[in-house]
Amino acid sequence: MPASYAYLGPEGTFTEVALRTLPEAATRQLIPYVSVQSALDAVRTGEAEAAFVPIENSVEGGITATLDELVAGTPLMIYREVLLSITFALLVRPGTKLSDVKTVSAHPAAQPQVRNWLKANLPDAVWESAASNADAARLVQEGRYDAAFAGEFAAARYGLEALETEIHDAENAQTRFVLVGRPARPAAPTGADKTSVVLWQRDDHPGGLRDLLGEFATRGINLMVLQSRPTGAGIGNYCFCIDAAGHISERRMAEALMGLKRICRDVRFLGSYPRADVTAAQVRTPLPGTSEDEFMAAAEWVTRCQDGRF
Amino acid sequence: MPASYAYLGPEGTFTEVALRTLPEAATRQLIPYVSVQSALDAVRTGEAEAAFVPIENSVEGGITATLDELVAGTPLMIYREVLLSITFALLVRPGTKLSDVKTVSAHPAAQPQVRNWLKANLPDAVWESAASNADAARLVQEGRYDAAFAGEFAAARYGLEALETEIHDAENAQTRFVLVGRPARPAAPTGADKTSVVLWQRDDHPGGLRDLLGEFATRGINLMVLQSRPTGAGIGNYCFCIDAAGHISERRMAEALMGLKRICRDVRFLGSYPRADVTAAQVRTPLPGTSEDEFMAAAEWVTRCQDGRF
Repeated sequence: MPASYAYLGPEGTFTEVALRTLPEAATRQLIPYVSVQSALDAVRTGEAEAAFVPIENSVEGGITATLDELVAGTPLMIYREVLLSITFALLVRPGTKLSDVKTVSAHPAAQPQVRNWLKANLPDAVWESAASNADAARLVQEGRYDAAFAGEFAAARYGLEALETEIHDAENAQTRFVLVGRPARPAAPTGADKTSVVLWQRDDHPGGLRDLLGEFATRGINLMVLQSRPTGAGIGNYCFCIDAAGHISERRMAEALMGLKRICRDVRFLGSYPRADVTAAQVRTPLPGTSEDEFMAAAEWVTRCQDGRF
Repeated sequence: MPASYAYLGPEGTFTEVALRTLPEAATRQLIPYVSVQSALDAVRTGEAEAAFVPIENSVEGGITATLDELVAGTPLMIYREVLLSITFALLVRPGTKLSDVKTVSAHPAAQPQVRNWLKANLPDAVWESAASNADAARLVQEGRYDAAFAGEFAAARYGLEALETEIHDAENAQTRFVLVGRPARPAAPTGADKTSVVLWQRDDHPGGLRDLLGEFATRGINLMVLQSRPTGAGIGNYCFCIDAAGHISERRMAEALMGLKRICRDVRFLGSYPRADVTAAQVRTPLPGTSEDEFMAAAEWVTRCQDGRF
């Protein structure tokens, strides 16, 4: 049996399309799972080599099921990320006209992205939530609903046709997916990498979170995402999921993580991996005095001073 | 017609129970709405005096529908907050035994709070999501499902009985609700208040968010919640919803908000209102040099210096 990747199913969703953009997916068996939790559990138990799940959506924000799974339980690590633009097609049974559509279905996450289109084109259509967009397409095939919002690629699989394509309320509606595996040595830096960590504050005092972020800022490290997630210890108790620009093998990121390890109650490293949004050539020049060379030179200088060789 | 409060319906949910804990609710007509959006729209159009909606849950985190409504559109203001402990009852038709329960239903937000209980007591039960916990109870009454997770108070309304009560996976599972109205002069400070704002960063640079938080920390103001919400401008573009301890009529909070107004691209004030979690007597002493008196004394001293009266 070949090595397998678990992914959030069913087949024919944006997740499967995003997964197939990874070259390594071609050599793996791709197995759909019913939930983010079950896909990640398959990695934890060794049933799958890695799991591919959505983690962030430019309209809805962080995918809390994924964040909460990465924050708790046996540690996992992010190996890769994929960005996919999300536009919907209105799928119907062949021959259906727009004026015939009385009921529409899709995953609830699709609703904010098609709300304006619905208001303008099908103001009286009744919305029925489905477990996934692919499931909505299946229910249209079975005659239960008149139309489904799903990726255009789902039409062929369910014997439907696209009455309309390129439906999206927000320009640049994108979803970010991650390939998650068991902890391992992170891949070598590419020059355009990001590092994901989870931070738990030691206690709650004025400036507590500011001090945590200072460990990055002081070293010229840009933050890309900061999501707070409840720790389960009651209202107002949060941990912070942070994506920062850079790689743990770089001196400044290593120093920032050491600083956080000292001042936080707990830190969970979630991986260093290539950024999907930019290439090395597009990475901005760091602030003066915060390049990798300057970090190395400063470390050597301190060593020389400690040795009396200044 | 008496003044009315809109609330997230249907009747018989935790939202209605929380609303009825407010003394002012007794003198208002309470009208259920089908969504957070429609309840808040009723305030914007003047149809309702205020709307009562959930905003934060200690298990699931921020209620994104509410945050996104407060962040965008015509400005609204939070007048009050209510904290409610959430424990579920398993409601069934009279005579049903636990061993008869093959299908269970509730709002999806209930699922993480009853997951462990289900695994231990009804491992084979099939989960069916409902539009609300009250709706799940109604569907049990109609015979569509065998059992619903809902507040125990919903049993009487739907002719059901509670097979089990006090079901909750997380200790201290609480939901925070807010009463939202049109912008007005905030109520006078009580000594235990919080201030809610939304911040949009001017641009994205290392330390950008740290600098925003510094406006609070520098003045000894504690942050209670920080939630990031997508701005809709693509992956990685977020604004920040922040709750900070204190009242806008206090000198240090006013100064912090002025600082933010200067350095942010935009700031939306969402209100100053009494905290539901503590009383004035329980509010911690501020950091040395950051009490209201010290802020006042320092302002007078600078004025004297400017006048040559030092």
